[in-house]
This record gives sequence, C-alpha cells and structure tokens, in this order.
Amino acid sequence: MTEQKAINTIRLLAADTVQKASSGHPGAPMGMAAMAFALWTKELRYNPKNPHWLGRDRFVLSNGHACALQYVLLHLTGFDEFTMDELKKFRQVGSKTPGHPENALCNGGIEVSTGPLGQGISNAVGLAAAEAHLAATFNKPDFPVIDNYTYVFCGDGCLQEGVSNEASSIAGHLGLGKLIVLYDDNNITIDGETELSFTEDVLVRYQSLGWDTSVVKDGDHDVAGILAAIEKAKSVKDKPSIIKVKTTIGFGSKNQGKEKVHGAALGNEDIAQIKTKWGFDPNVNFHVPPEVAEHFLKQVETGKKHEEAWNQLFKGYSEKYPELSKELLRRMAGKLPDNWKSVLPTWKPTDPEKGTRQFSETIINKLSEVLPELVGGSADLNPSTLTYLKVSKDFQKGSYDGRNFRFGVREHGMAAFLNGLSAYGGLIPFGSTFLNFIGYAMGAVRLSAISDFGVLYIMTHDSIGLGEDGPTHQPIESLMMLRALPGINVLRPGDGNETSGAYAVAIEHRHRPSVLALSRQACANLQGTSIEGVAKGAYIVKEAEGGKPQLTIVGSGSELPLAYKAAEILSDLKVRVVSMPSWELFREQSDEYKESVLIDGVPVLAVEAGSFVGWREYSHSVIAMTSFGTSGPYKEVLKKYGFTAENIAEKARKVFEYYQKVPAHSLVKRAPL
Amino acid sequence: MTEQKAINTIRLLAADTVQKASSGHPGAPMGMAAMAFALWTKELRYNPKNPHWLGRDRFVLSNGHACALQYVLLHLTGFDEFTMDELKKFRQVGSKTPGHPENALCNGGIEVSTGPLGQGISNAVGLAAAEAHLAATFNKPDFPVIDNYTYVFCGDGCLQEGVSNEASSIAGHLGLGKLIVLYDDNNITIDGETELSFTEDVLVRYQSLGWDTSVVKDGDHDVAGILAAIEKAKSVKDKPSIIKVKTTIGFGSKNQGKEKVHGAALGNEDIAQIKTKWGFDPNVNFHVPPEVAEHFLKQVETGKKHEEAWNQLFKGYSEKYPELSKELLRRMAGKLPDNWKSVLPTWKPTDPEKGTRQFSETIINKLSEVLPELVGGSADLNPSTLTYLKVSKDFQKGSYDGRNFRFGVREHGMAAFLNGLSAYGGLIPFGSTFLNFIGYAMGAVRLSAISDFGVLYIMTHDSIGLGEDGPTHQPIESLMMLRALPGINVLRPGDGNETSGAYAVAIEHRHRPSVLALSRQACANLQGTSIEGVAKGAYIVKEAEGGKPQLTIVGSGSELPLAYKAAEILSDLKVRVVSMPSWELFREQSDEYKESVLIDGVPVLAVEAGSFVGWREYSHSVIAMTSFGTSGPYKEVLKKYGFTAENIAEKARKVFEYYQKVPAHSLVKRAPL
Repeated sequence: MTEQKAINTIRLLAADTVQKASSGHPGAPMGMAAMAFALWTKELRYNPKNPHWLGRDRFVLSNGHACALQYVLLHLTGFDEFTMDELKKFRQVGSKTPGHPENALCNGGIEVSTGPLGQGISNAVGLAAAEAHLAATFNKPDFPVIDNYTYVFCGDGCLQEGVSNEASSIAGHLGLGKLIVLYDDNNITIDGETELSFTEDVLVRYQSLGWDTSVVKDGDHDVAGILAAIEKAKSVKDKPSIIKVKTTIGFGSKNQGKEKVHGAALGNEDIAQIKTKWGFDPNVNFHVPPEVAEHFLKQVETGKKHEEAWNQLFKGYSEKYPELSKELLRRMAGKLPDNWKSVLPTWKPTDPEKGTRQFSETIINKLSEVLPELVGGSADLNPSTLTYLKVSKDFQKGSYDGRNFRFGVREHGMAAFLNGLSAYGGLIPFGSTFLNFIGYAMGAVRLSAISDFGVLYIMTHDSIGLGEDGPTHQPIESLMMLRALPGINVLRPGDGNETSGAYAVAIEHRHRPSVLALSRQACANLQGTSIEGVAKGAYIVKEAEGGKPQLTIVGSGSELPLAYKAAEILSDLKVRVVSMPSWELFREQSDEYKESVLIDGVPVLAVEAGSFVGWREYSHSVIAMTSFGTSGPYKEVLKKYGFTAENIAEKARKVFEYYQKVPAHSLVKRAPL
Repeated sequence: MTEQKAINTIRLLAADTVQKASSGHPGAPMGMAAMAFALWTKELRYNPKNPHWLGRDRFVLSNGHACALQYVLLHLTGFDEFTMDELKKFRQVGSKTPGHPENALCNGGIEVSTGPLGQGISNAVGLAAAEAHLAATFNKPDFPVIDNYTYVFCGDGCLQEGVSNEASSIAGHLGLGKLIVLYDDNNITIDGETELSFTEDVLVRYQSLGWDTSVVKDGDHDVAGILAAIEKAKSVKDKPSIIKVKTTIGFGSKNQGKEKVHGAALGNEDIAQIKTKWGFDPNVNFHVPPEVAEHFLKQVETGKKHEEAWNQLFKGYSEKYPELSKELLRRMAGKLPDNWKSVLPTWKPTDPEKGTRQFSETIINKLSEVLPELVGGSADLNPSTLTYLKVSKDFQKGSYDGRNFRFGVREHGMAAFLNGLSAYGGLIPFGSTFLNFIGYAMGAVRLSAISDFGVLYIMTHDSIGLGEDGPTHQPIESLMMLRALPGINVLRPGDGNETSGAYAVAIEHRHRPSVLALSRQACANLQGTSIEGVAKGAYIVKEAEGGKPQLTIVGSGSELPLAYKAAEILSDLKVRVVSMPSWELFREQSDEYKESVLIDGVPVLAVEAGSFVGWREYSHSVIAMTSFGTSGPYKEVLKKYGFTAENIAEKARKVFEYYQKVPAHSLVKRAPL
C-alpha cells in the first residue's frame, strides 16, 4: 500500500460521505487528509476498542465542519460505533455522524463538540492544562501515569475568532508544551480567498503569544514533513506549538483550491473524475481498498499495545501508591467522595448578612478541602468574585499542581478552557466573573450545555444591585438568556443557606453546567431557607400565618430578603413567601409539588432585579427591570427601580386587590400537548 | 504654568472625584494623566463648545473604568455639561458622570459607551473605518471635509479580550492609518501584576496584525516623547498605530504601581500626602490652579478656530459641490431620504416561496440603491446570509468608498465595529451571520442597545430549521436572550412582506438597534401579511371565519406559514391566526389594540421554533423547543420537534378543548403596578 493511496481513500470516503448526504463540507477533509493520515497512523496514541482509555492522546477537530474527516478516521481505525453505515447516515436524524461533531452522541472518539469556530482549539488548551495539572498531581518518579499530547486540527476560521487568541495567549503564558496545533492553511474562507479579510501574519502572532511555530510547505503530500514538524513540536517542551500546513482545499476536485468546494457536496461527476484520476472505480462509492483497510486497522493492535503498556505502568503505580491510584481512578470516573456534602456550611438568621458572593467564598473554600478535583479561577477578578482557593496556589508554569487558574481578562477563552478541563475528566472546573460578562462567553457556555460538561460558572455582581459601576456592568438580560438555554442550571441563591444549596446542585450535576448568580450587596440570612429547598428549584420560605395564603410573593437571589420583609410589612394579609432560585429545577418537580408551592387561585407577585421578560411563566405580576439600570450607590439604584420592601409590599397589595375581582389563573396547569 | 503642574492637576482632580464618590478607579487616570495632557492640549482637534462638530477627532477611552480622567478632561477644557458639580456627582444617580462613560447621557464629548473591556478599541476601528469611507465618498480635491484621526486610550484588559484582537486584525488588514492607540502599559491588572496572566509580547502581536508600533518609556512625565510618538504614528499613513506608554498606575499614591490603587478610592490621607508632595494644599479638594485652568481653557479658543477653519473649507465645498454637501449634511444629521420606504417590495401569495433570508437579499439590495448610507457585511458568510450589496464593491485598502465590509470570521469584532460606524454618524451599518452566533457578539450587541446605536443585525439560519448543521449551529435561546435585552427590536418576519416590514422598522429606528431573525428554509407568502402589520409587533393575518374566534394561533417567522396551514386544517373551528414578529413593538401598542388581537377569553397557542421559556407572556400554550435540536434534513428536524401544520392543528384542538372547561385568562390585562 502506498501512503498516497491511503490518503486518497480518506479523501474519497469523505467526499462520498458528503455526497450521500447532499450536505456538508468536503473541501477541508480532502485538504487535511495527509496530516490526518500522518497523525492518526503514526503519532496519535489511542485504542479504537477502548476510546475512553485514560492514557490516550487527545485529538480535537477544531474546524468541526470538517467532521466527515473525523468520522472517516474513526471508521477506518476501527471504532465500533463508527460503522460504514453511520458514514452513510451522515447528517441524518438519529445518526452518530451529525453535521458537526458531538461528544454527547457517542461513547468516545469525540472529545469535545466543535463547529462553532474557535472553540475546539480553546478547549484543547484546557485539555492540555488538565493533563499538566493531573500529571503534576498524580505522577511519581518512574510512573508517568498521566502523560499525553493534545493535538488540534484547525483552519483559518478558528484563528480569526477572538476566543482562540484569548485561549492561545493563556496557553503560551502557561507554556503548555504538550499542546500541538496543526493549522490547515488553505487560503480559502467561505467568502473567497483569505486575502479578503485575513492578511495578518498568523505565525508571528503565535510567536508573540509564546508559541513555537513551524511550516510544512506541501501539506497535500508530504507525510514525512508533517511528521518531522510534529517531532520538532514534541521536542519543544516549554511552549505549545503550531504547525502551519499549507494545503489545497478540496484536493483532487476540479474546483480544488476554490471556495466552491468548502460547503457543498462536490457532485457525482466531479467525484467520478477524481476516482478515475486516482485509480479508483468511479462507479463504486464508499470503497476502501483492502490493503488500505488493513493498514488503518493496524491501529487496533497498536492501540491495544499502547493500553497494555500503560496498564502495566499503572499496575506498578497502584502497587507502590495504592491511595493515589485509587484517588485518580475515582476522579477519572467522575465519582464524588463520600460525605462531601457534609462540609456545606449553613447560616442562622442571627448570622451577619453578607453578599452571596461572600457566602460563596466560604463555601467554595470548604468544598476545596474535600474536593481536590475542584479547580478554576477568575477572569482577573479575584478580589471581586472571591473564588481563590486558599487551600492551594496558582497553576502556573512550574507549579502545574496549583488549583487556581489565572485566566486574565478573557471571559470567552476562560469558558472554552473550562470545557476542555471538563472534557479531560478528573476535574470539576469553575470560572468566575461578573454575571454581565457571561455575555462575552455565551459561545462557550452553550457548548458546556450541549456537551454535558458539568462546569461551574460562578457569576457575581448579578444585578443592578452592583451599584456604581452602572449599566455597562449591570446585567439585565443575563438570567433570562441563561434560562432560555437548554441543559443548564441557573441558580440564584438568596442567602447563605441557599448559596450552599446552589453549590450542592452544581457539584452534583457532573454532566450539566450550572451558573451561580451571586450578589455583590449584602443579603440577610432568612429563617426557612435550606439546602434542600434549593434542590427543588422553588419552595416555601415563609408560610402565610393563619390559614390559606391570600397572596404569594416569589423572590430570587438578593430580592428574596426584600420579599420576606415585604411579607412582614403586609401583616394584615396572609402572605406566603416563595424562594425560586432555579426555574429549571422547579420545572423538574411533579405538578403536585408545583401546585403545593404556587397554589391555584392565589395570586403571585414575583420580584427579581433582572429582565421582566418571561416572568409570566411563574407569576401574575412582576417587579423586574424593563430598562437598563443606572450608576449610583446600590441602595439608591435599587430604590429607583422599585426594589425595596416597602414598594414590594405596596405593589403586592395592589395585586391582591386586583385579584379579588379577577380570578387568578393557575400557573402550573396547562393544556396537555 | 509647568506641564507637570497641569498633569498633576488632572491626577488630583481624578483622585478627588473618586474619593468624593468613595467608589471608582483612581489608578488609571493618574497613570494616564501625562498622555491625556499631551493629547488633549496639543493634538486632539475638538471644539468644547460644539462637541458634535463634524470635523472633530474622535477620542475613545477604551478602559472606561478610568472615566474620572475623561470627565476631568471634559471639565477642564470647557465642555459645558461637565461642570465641577458633575465631577462631584461622580457615580451618583442622575449624573452625567456615571461609573463608566455613557454616550447616551450627554450631548457630546463621549463618543461611545465603554467599560466592558475590549469594546472601545474595537469601536474605534469602526470609527476610523467610517472616516475612511466617508472621506472616500465625499472628499474632493482641495476639500478634505472628512479628515480626522481616531485616538484611543486603552489598558492591558482591553488587549487581553478577544474582541480587540478581532477588530485590530481587521484594522490592520484595512490599513486604517488614522487610527492611533495609546496603550497604558502599567503592568498591573486587578489580580496583581500582568506577570500572572499576560506575558505575551503585545507589540509583536500588533505588528503581526499589520500595525505600526512604538514605545514611550516614561509615560508618567515625558510629554514630548508622547507627542513625538503620536507624530510618528500620524506619519505612517497606511497602517494603524499603537504606542505603548509605560506608566505607573496611581502615580503619586503611596501605593503607586500596585493593584491596590486600581479600583478603590485612595483615602484622604494618601491624597493629602500627594497634594503636599506636589505643592497643592492638602486641605483643598477639587482645586484647579488658575494658571492651569487658563491653560486648559485655551482649548475653547483653539477649538473654535479649528471649527471656523473647517467651516470655511466646508463653505467652499458647498459652493462647488452643492449636492454632495447637502447629502453629507443629511446623512450626518441622521435624516432618511424622502420616500425611501417606497422601494420596499411586497409579495403576493402566488409568488414563489423562499427563505426569508432570500427575501432579505432582494430588499436590502433595493434599499441600498436609495440609502447610500447603508453599509455593512458579514462575518465571512456572504453566500449564506445574502447581504452583499450588489450596487457597490468591497471596502478594502484602496477602495474605501466600497460599502461591503469583509469582517472575516469575527462576530464580536464585527458587532463592536458596527457600533463604531454608527457612532461616527452618516451611516446605517449592518452586520450578518447565523443567529446562533450572535451569542459570540452579545458583549457588543448590548452596547448597541445601551448606546442608542441603530445598528442592523441581520441574522439568518434562525432556528432548528437550518437542518443539517445540527445543534451547534441551531439557535434555541437566541430569540429570548435578545427579547430580554432592553432597547433593541427583535424582528422575526414570516414571509416576504413581513421581511420588508422588518426592514422598515429597523431602518426607521436610527437610535435603537434591530435584530432581524431570518430563515434558511423557504416560507410561503401569505394572504394578510403586511409591512404595516409588522410595525405593530403582532397583528391578525387570518381572521376566523363565521364569527368570534374560538382559538388563536400565534406564529412567528418560519412557523407563521405553518400556523396558517394549521388553521386551514381546523376548518370546523373558528381559528384566528396572529403573526407576532416582534414582542417589543407589540408591547408598545395600546391595551385596546392588544386586546383586539389577543381577545379576552380566547385561548392562544403560540408556535415558535425557539425556546419555550417566556412564551406564557403571550399564549396559554406553546409549541416550542425544550431541548437542543438535532442534525438532519430540515423537514425531518422540524417534524421531530412538532413543527408541522398537522401537529400544530392537533395540539391546537387540544388547547381549544382544554379551554372549553377552564376559562382562558386574559393575556393583556394585568394588575396595575
């Protein structure tokens, strides 16, 4: 078998895959086939029969639209799930071969979900950092049980996105030497030649970020050159590496080198001429020459050997370091230690009021002592978000065992990095910034949700209650924006106990990200709040005295204490106070439970210092934001927009009076669809 | 007067301003005082008494937290709104001196709202591009009526953010020679020294992006050095310039050079020692030595002269080119040409069905012929978003009169750039990408809204109806996320006429951004849709036959035709079909109108292929998304999640039947708060 035949087989399988779907991206797979062949048959360590093997190298296809390539490689090298039939079901409902790679759809083989440009390479920085951290934490002399490379394929698009510059700057700063990026430089974007919009010197930029760089001139053929560049990259141990591989998009097509071949099937005629040109039968689709099949399937044997060698190593490690090895296995399995929950602190109403960010500081530090897998940091806001783990030190070049990451002012890069940490396993990653700036990171946050990554987003300064910094920093839309995102917990605790409850939920959900929205300003500790209550999403904090409630006030976060006070003011009415820290968790409760909290016929006034949009879901009326906020001392700002106990009480009475005349409809019962 | 005295006056005024508020950021203003003095008294062309003077240089304080500096400069140089009293009201409710600069709060002097890091410098790229475009469009030999520089102050934070790398790469590509950035390099971030997280070589990065770079070593004192660097930057005409100015944060403070001085008032004691040290009376606050006041106020005369000279030039221009000058003044005043609306096309039900993105293509090209101020482009998605203006060419180095911008794969940079174009005036900027990827740009989109910038976001592929690209590209949360943002129109038209209607709204709103959510897939043109209907946010498209409706189906966008068909299927019921392209516009209608559309007691089923969260606002039941979508041919994907006329009809009948037994509550009437 010649290497070129194997490479051409990749190209044609990818072209056939896209053609069968009449949809997809053939150009990049055909351009990257040679580097894919080189990496996947000569360098990458993996076991097709055990895709989750702990010792594997990580591979990320950052230009996820080129996924026909990845599926073809998984098929050829013997990953059981990626049958020829799955290639033929490319981009069909229910297949394992969707339009962009989704890790949650398959049992290994895809490390992270990619496609939104810039994410994969940024995830890879997290993957490499995870490796560095776990290696520094668990490896012992002669026992490098954690020891793998992280390889990335990416294209122009990924390198234009700001998120990749952020993450790459972090990678360079940290000197992550085992991160190796192969940049498919084909001079073509969707609109045409890169000349139209992308004329910067990419490698010089990466040098400025602290990376090692090199170039492969003929990436269409030069397997030896690609391998040499990878070897060189491996030899540079204190810097991440980027290898610019010059390729021809859609190599082989009559339109090779043009944008035409990027995002649509080539057409049967074009594919036929390529097959003829390369000595394949133009009438046969999805053909793998036997000698090519055999060559790729050697990876099954190679992979088995890799794993066996590692198993041997791990056996010795387990014998010498039984506790460490048990701990590593526990962590990689994503199992929480017993009784971790018992460290969660609780507060009494007599305890001093504090910002929920301050309760959070106490809690995360308690948790960090029993959860060594809890690692993370802030986007340069430690003095404000209060998430520095006092039990540990900085994760820096030379101290990779540190658990505190310094992300710099890079919210989007941070979130994508956290996804990478989560994807590696063995870690519970968190990141913190102001809630408003999750808007910078939404591209990565939604991928946490799609990918089932249990990342903790600890977002402080969560409303106009942050005060003087003003509307550019005061979130309005953020809570609703996150609630509209599937697959994520949005938690807005109102006092100390609820902040513990929010952490309990977030830590427990190892396959669902959580956002903790925390206040800057002080919140009183309330009678009736609880860790268990938070887990139900909404619950009764203060029951109406003297019989069935006449009115319910729902509050979340820093407005809960205000709602509580308002109920006290309304001493002549029977007022129930409900805390609603999480819509998602409440939605998951039984209708019976929901109706026990939001009783049919009892009017509900909700109070939240965020957007009013959507609150009709759980209330008849709402005191919330209908505009941006304003800069000023926080009490004045809150007062300006109606967030005082007095105003809530006044408005609650109006709601009560209104619903004396009009029946209050059920907020739970709906037409069954 | 010595220069140092003037510089120290800036420092002390800023320190006093922050101290009075007991809140804010003294460090950066004190560090940047020398460059501020140099720029604002020697280089920047502006007229304090006419802040909107068209010929002014643009100044952007990208590190907006340093705004005490900007307010002090505006005060000292004689901007009427920025009185000493306003400095004393720093960060107070109702002042013109909020915690971060807000252009919408004052009548000139602040070009763009900054504070969210990375935005200002990216806006400045748009400001410089606007200048280049208008100059190329309007200037004539001997009449450079558009001819100004754009200056930026920024700090480390702005340069860590990905958005600034995106915009800076665009600026380098475009060779925007009149853009000059002064980078306050003080080695300090909130967390401590930049060494913690930011060790890249910034100037080399900027060189790689095509910028000219230089360094001023003593930025605390060396006014001549700063001026020389600015002169050098001006002499480089084909590249933007960045000048690294090494400074000491909090210069003068006992904690100068440390992160302590970044984000909190220095304290009276510290300020007193600085005053003593510099020969100021430690007991007097907000003191401006008379000779310093006089020196700064010379800018009133200088500015007047600048404007008079420009007026002279413009007079000659007007005489020689009366039509052009009239047109320039019309555009700069933000006035639309008469009858622009008459070009908006309409469609009949017999016209072919198309994706609303395709209707958009027809419309934007019609509009581009009568609105020469309509300029913009896509984030490398022209073949998909279909927003290329055929009437013009590319805006590129050497063709700045082109109206089509090539943003590359840089959504966040694009949005921030558009804000800059809008801020300059004379332009109606638009940007396009897939709706899902507005999540990458939310940081800038929310600033469009805060800043009253009438940017058009033309977002296609707006639901799971995009099909094969799968969940990584299928927006779910996007519509609700944008609806929760104040100050923005979200428009989701359902056919050709409604797409025209959406453009009519977006173009008319010159001080409110609009998002157009457009479909990839084909939508039938419906009887009953109209441009006027869209302006009301929601309206009746198909009235129930034979009397009062028994049921209303509300649809938006590509689900409107499905709702329409469903009503036809339900021929035995009296079904009204309402189109709801915009929540915001509907909200602005009278209660009477709203009740005429959503009749009390008539159950409403809403249909939208986006998140269900929030739809209880305008419906009793909803067919919407409760999860991410899936990759597959779009009709199959839509069917999987219930978006077929048949399923809508079936579910609508259930809703009707349910509400035969239970009263349907009013969706309009609420307790008056």
